[in-house]
Amino acid sequence: MTNAQITLVQLDNYGPWTVTPEPRREADLQTMQSRLFADLSQFFGTRDGYVFFTRFDNMIAVTNGADLEDHARVQESIRNRYPVTVSLGIGTGASPTDALVDATAHLQAAGSAQDAERREVLGGQPLADDERADDDVHIAHFDVNDATGKYTDELDAFSTFVRIEQGYASLMRVLHDEYGGLGFFVGGDNVVAIVPELDRAAYEAVIEHVRAEADMSLKVGVGSGHTATDAGLAAKHALERCREDGTIVEGDV
Amino acid sequence: MTNAQITLVQLDNYGPWTVTPEPRREADLQTMQSRLFADLSQFFGTRDGYVFFTRFDNMIAVTNGADLEDHARVQESIRNRYPVTVSLGIGTGASPTDALVDATAHLQAAGSAQDAERREVLGGQPLADDERADDDVHIAHFDVNDATGKYTDELDAFSTFVRIEQGYASLMRVLHDEYGGLGFFVGGDNVVAIVPELDRAAYEAVIEHVRAEADMSLKVGVGSGHTATDAGLAAKHALERCREDGTIVEGDV
Amino acid sequence: MTNAQITLVQLDNYGPWTVTPEPRREADLQTMQSRLFADLSQFFGTRDGYVFFTRFDNMIAVTNGADLEDHARVQESIRNRYPVTVSLGIGTGASPTDALVDATAHLQAAGSAQDAERREVLGGQPLADDERADDDVHIAHFDVNDATGKYTDELDAFSTFVRIEQGYASLMRVLHDEYGGLGFFVGGDNVVAIVPELDRAAYEAVIEHVRAEADMSLKVGVGSGHTATDAGLAAKHALERCREDGTIVEGDV
Amino acid sequence: MTNAQITLVQLDNYGPWTVTPEPRREADLQTMQSRLFADLSQFFGTRDGYVFFTRFDNMIAVTNGADLEDHARVQESIRNRYPVTVSLGIGTGASPTDALVDATAHLQAAGSAQDAERREVLGGQPLADDERADDDVHIAHFDVNDATGKYTDELDAFSTFVRIEQGYASLMRVLHDEYGGLGFFVGGDNVVAIVPELDRAAYEAVIEHVRAEADMSLKVGVGSGHTATDAGLAAKHALERCREDGTIVEGDV
Repeated sequence: MTNAQITLVQLDNYGPWTVTPEPRREADLQTMQSRLFADLSQFFGTRDGYVFFTRFDNMIAVTNGADLEDHARVQESIRNRYPVTVSLGIGTGASPTDALVDATAHLQAAGSAQDAERREVLGGQPLADDERADDDVHIAHFDVNDATGKYTDELDAFSTFVRIEQGYASLMRVLHDEYGGLGFFVGGDNVVAIVPELDRAAYEAVIEHVRAEADMSLKVGVGSGHTATDAGLAAKHALERCREDGTIVEGDV
Repeated sequence: MTNAQITLVQLDNYGPWTVTPEPRREADLQTMQSRLFADLSQFFGTRDGYVFFTRFDNMIAVTNGADLEDHARVQESIRNRYPVTVSLGIGTGASPTDALVDATAHLQAAGSAQDAERREVLGGQPLADDERADDDVHIAHFDVNDATGKYTDELDAFSTFVRIEQGYASLMRVLHDEYGGLGFFVGGDNVVAIVPELDRAAYEAVIEHVRAEADMSLKVGVGSGHTATDAGLAAKHALERCREDGTIVEGDV
Repeated sequence: MTNAQITLVQLDNYGPWTVTPEPRREADLQTMQSRLFADLSQFFGTRDGYVFFTRFDNMIAVTNGADLEDHARVQESIRNRYPVTVSLGIGTGASPTDALVDATAHLQAAGSAQDAERREVLGGQPLADDERADDDVHIAHFDVNDATGKYTDELDAFSTFVRIEQGYASLMRVLHDEYGGLGFFVGGDNVVAIVPELDRAAYEAVIEHVRAEADMSLKVGVGSGHTATDAGLAAKHALERCREDGTIVEGDV
Repeated sequence: MTNAQITLVQLDNYGPWTVTPEPRREADLQTMQSRLFADLSQFFGTRDGYVFFTRFDNMIAVTNGADLEDHARVQESIRNRYPVTVSLGIGTGASPTDALVDATAHLQAAGSAQDAERREVLGGQPLADDERADDDVHIAHFDVNDATGKYTDELDAFSTFVRIEQGYASLMRVLHDEYGGLGFFVGGDNVVAIVPELDRAAYEAVIEHVRAEADMSLKVGVGSGHTATDAGLAAKHALERCREDGTIVEGDV
């Protein structure tokens, strides 16, 4: 069973702010965006959630275990420390994609992302405690087989980046369109996906798809748990077993 | 004329560190990576450079104007404040892609990115002052026409993300393969590219390519300057003229 | 009734680290220390605690409401993101000073702060849930009457600083020696003290003591609550009433 | 010869902001203040300056080597990334105290620190290049003899803090009133002072003064240089010689 709680974090009216009264320096924007993401990652990450930077002005978080008060607290903390504010939409569902559709709808219903009047929306409802179970969250942690040997140490840095991105794009599409999963590049050669419960054959098919479409060899560790941290650490340990044993799918499948 | 100075920032032996003695929590890694990127962006950004997060363990920076001492200083600063160290490869060239190949070669020559003995390499040479000119750096700042209206406010957040990523992947490939440019997603619906000097027809062809391949409408502002900041701010102002006038290519073309 | 839970945060073997293999740049140390403090303030602060920077290598926190798991989590998070580690001693007591003596003892029992072998101690026990009450934490928030008009806008910045520090030193001594309270400068002209339950006459005596000893006029807002945040916000609101009404003691006295 | 360039960094209208529309949570203020200080320390620190947190809403920096453009750049960077802005007053003089009086005067002349209309002042003039010499900056780095053995490992953490603060207060007063120096607590048991050129007898007298007044034994390393970093590193190395040789004054005296 899957019971994902997804939070969409959207910077309020951010695009217009970046060019008002005139375009702000890109380096300052990059610094501010990545610090804000880091703060969210620290906040939800120490409450057993995961945050993905996604587009930076729209970030997606797995927040099973965080309640409304937690969401209101981080919203206030950002208002007190940054020149921008955030809106938060919380969604739940049997598949991660459904949960995100739900989360997005709460923000879209409140107005446009570039509506100057729409600020600090807090929409949607977290899972109640009695709805939660020990296998609510399923995480699949993918990486590229020998990325350092095949790419980083062989190609120039941008060509490696393009190769990794292509494999990643193929992976995120197939996970989303075929399986209701949400995959995110998290740096290096790693993709972390929040997924429904899938069996071994599904993961083998996903890996084969990426090999055929993007000529990239992946392996994956799969974990499940009460929270993203539980599931994610289990997935990482499973991925280590792939490394040790030369297998391509390990873990809770 | 183009005279790009590119620095490749590579975390030393980072992959193994993330799983030693056992896998570290992903949220901590995300927080640490994004803070480290923010510090580099602040450091080079206030010295008129641009840093792109790329894969986070491999970051690419445009560093025209930063000398060897600056590079050594930031390397020391990171060693003193983070649990990881960085190697820096500096490359120069008539095209950004050539400069990056040069930068990458300095690190690859010193050993593997996952060689435990290879730490804090500082390779390559910045441009000498008498080699520098007022139009050394060319930057093209792209964004998506009405991304908020067409995507953010209409699709769920992941579908928007997938659409933006696809357009971006198409753009970065054509810039790299056909024109010697390096394009980077910088958040929202924005791509900043460090490019050779290109004419209006080239930009129109790039935009048409992305429209045909990824069904995404872009516009672009182009600027040139002594440094990335000069060129980048000029590009942003040109992009504002696109917004005001409904045009798709403005600036120094 | 008071029931303070105090955590002593001590950087492990920090002094020797700052000069090994040779003295590290002071600016890097300052940046690292203040970022580490900020992270602790964010961590405990969003769990309704307060952290004071104190000596930076020894920080004192009011942590009512944070359990052992929270303490272990922040210890791990710092290990994963900084070049240094922290030990944590947790103490409780009817007065804040007793609680801190208890917290300190847990670390001193485990070894010297400069013992290279003593790392990441986690000693002491938080309050059990059934020991906690709604008035466990008492906070007194002091500020200087018209500090901007009398000092900041009149004296040079260092002379103002010396004047503020003298008043603060007088205040922290009398609170500690006479009343079992722990006062901390928190910036500007503000001192936040974690105190036992005290009556109005006690606060008037404290203020008179500082006026006589350091020629500085203070006012104070006092609050109590289940956590430092509850008590601290109540104290701030009480201090606002002092400002509005021209009084010198307001709140829960 | 001394030729100090001191910058006073003052948060604009900060006190009122912290209580508008109602009091903001102290933990958020502490986090924001310390991050802002860290950014300034990183900015000026990698330009060979020193920043001291002082009162956090008023920070004092030694900025020999930073020009007007650098000051304007950091002012812009903070505006782009924080909810508050800063004013900067630059002063120069034969003694650090004179330089700070000059720096302060530039801000006071522009209006009150709590004037809502006074924002982002940039007043005063940095040293011209031809006014600068290799011994412009003199730094004395003090620490307490065996602070860990005598205090940290023996007393409770607050009593240690009180003892260190008392010694520090005595030191900063005598340096300021008798010698024109500015001393700042920088964490642990360390005080860094920006001073005029003083001889050995002066340092011995200062140390004796603190021993007599505050019963605390200090030692000091003294360095001079073109910038704060040069002088400060020399002072640190001199302090190491004190540690090795059991002396109380070493370095450039």
